[in-house]
Amino acid sequence: MKVQKERLGSRAQSLFEAQQKSICAELASLDGHAEFRFDKWERSGGGGGLTAILSDGVLFERAGVNTSTVWGEFDATALAKLGGQERRFFATGISMVLHPHSPMVPTMHANFRYLTRGEQGWFGGGSDLTPYITKREDVQAFHRAWKSICDRHDSTYYACFKAWCDRYFTIPHRGEMRGVGGIFFDDLADDLEKVFAFVSDCCQNVLSPYLPIVQRRRDEPYGERERRFQLWRRGRYVEFNLIYDRGTSFGLATHGRTESILMSLPPLASWTYAYEPEPGSPEAQALTYYQPKDWLA
Amino acid sequence: MKVQKERLGSRAQSLFEAQQKSICAELASLDGHAEFRFDKWERSGGGGGLTAILSDGVLFERAGVNTSTVWGEFDATALAKLGGQERRFFATGISMVLHPHSPMVPTMHANFRYLTRGEQGWFGGGSDLTPYITKREDVQAFHRAWKSICDRHDSTYYACFKAWCDRYFTIPHRGEMRGVGGIFFDDLADDLEKVFAFVSDCCQNVLSPYLPIVQRRRDEPYGERERRFQLWRRGRYVEFNLIYDRGTSFGLATHGRTESILMSLPPLASWTYAYEPEPGSPEAQALTYYQPKDWLA
Repeated sequence: MKVQKERLGSRAQSLFEAQQKSICAELASLDGHAEFRFDKWERSGGGGGLTAILSDGVLFERAGVNTSTVWGEFDATALAKLGGQERRFFATGISMVLHPHSPMVPTMHANFRYLTRGEQGWFGGGSDLTPYITKREDVQAFHRAWKSICDRHDSTYYACFKAWCDRYFTIPHRGEMRGVGGIFFDDLADDLEKVFAFVSDCCQNVLSPYLPIVQRRRDEPYGERERRFQLWRRGRYVEFNLIYDRGTSFGLATHGRTESILMSLPPLASWTYAYEPEPGSPEAQALTYYQPKDWLA
Repeated sequence: MKVQKERLGSRAQSLFEAQQKSICAELASLDGHAEFRFDKWERSGGGGGLTAILSDGVLFERAGVNTSTVWGEFDATALAKLGGQERRFFATGISMVLHPHSPMVPTMHANFRYLTRGEQGWFGGGSDLTPYITKREDVQAFHRAWKSICDRHDSTYYACFKAWCDRYFTIPHRGEMRGVGGIFFDDLADDLEKVFAFVSDCCQNVLSPYLPIVQRRRDEPYGERERRFQLWRRGRYVEFNLIYDRGTSFGLATHGRTESILMSLPPLASWTYAYEPEPGSPEAQALTYYQPKDWLA
């Protein structure tokens, strides 16, 4: 069993690293202007990663695609933050956050990871969409695409992982989600070969639910007003990532490379005291989307 | 003892509420353009507060002065986050965060509070400075002014509370402070009358260490470059407040009013991947300031 898990860790790592290359190539071609910068880093406690960042593109204000594979022992601070008694861990993962310039194009996040703690191994991950000026058809298309990937592996996955995503990306102190969800799963420790096949499929097709939305929206005109709304919603993105996100907590607690972990934060974000959109406006309409809903009904 | 603590809670509350009025009047007059908006709020679990916000002034991009007095019992989430077993709490406090438009004028924060948990009562608080384009004489003047307030009460206060501030406002994942510190103290539970006299003095003179800096810097010219540096440092401010700040954690965990708690966040902040200032530039110089130093040496 131990040998199998070590092999799974290394197979997952190979998958993530290969996918990082092809995802970056696809995103750079989609942007059409800027290139990725690659930074390799090492972690003093064991392992390291490769961070790929595209900045100031035509389409993307920032796009980041990270892979990392780290191992070692949790220190007292990490143990207090992450809970449990077992100190030995191994983690390999890929994560990407795409922040377009245009408020008409949603932000997309995806992350897939394989972790072990002591003898226990599991997969986690998912992908979620954060639209600003929100179109119902985009949200539906994103959910439909992820459902079809899920359905290839298990007919219960989408319903379960969609609901999990709604819970996970809820910001308790705001009583709303950071976006419109997608799928999220964690602690999948049974039937690891089946889950690995699913994660591989997710990873290989991670851009396909998002690309049609980008193509539909990237040339839509917008002005200062839409941009302002985007910056304000990006504030919520920051709140979620810094206070609640497990990956961010795990990364900071295990002394990963800070600039790689926090590439998920938006390039620019705003906080406006007690802002409320005008009733009936597109902004007011957008706010109704950030609540769990059955998008495929 | 219980009666004395209840009286101390109510005396502290009166102090904070009276000071809020006079501080807001002084800040509005300093700004010279915008007025404070006052929002009274109630907390369903017990208590409430008064939030005063000045937005889009001439001097201040946003200035917030909060008072709140809340009580009740911690729920399971709050208990897990804050630790300990005792559920009954009472907290009264004032906090202010001043975010000027100009990167030549530092951000200032101050907070004073009296808390009880079960039978135990204590004071906490402090004030710290976050300059952007940083002048050594400003930092020295700020520290000197707080030392002189401290020295009126106890000759050991400044050294102790300055070091505490350095520790408290350090951002572990960045290995730097959010600014240049000032004073910070917490859990002061002995000789409560002496501490209350000190806190009263701090509160009544809270603007005096800051105002001379504002007057010196408010008309200094700046451009896009200085503004960009300010927005980038404000990103650090957000990181500290959302991940580490006790007041923010306490407020969110006890279901305070989110917009009041998060008025501390800057109106606009940026994150630039792997940004490093040019060696020898004023920005590079500023970075050397965000480490604990003996400013009065």
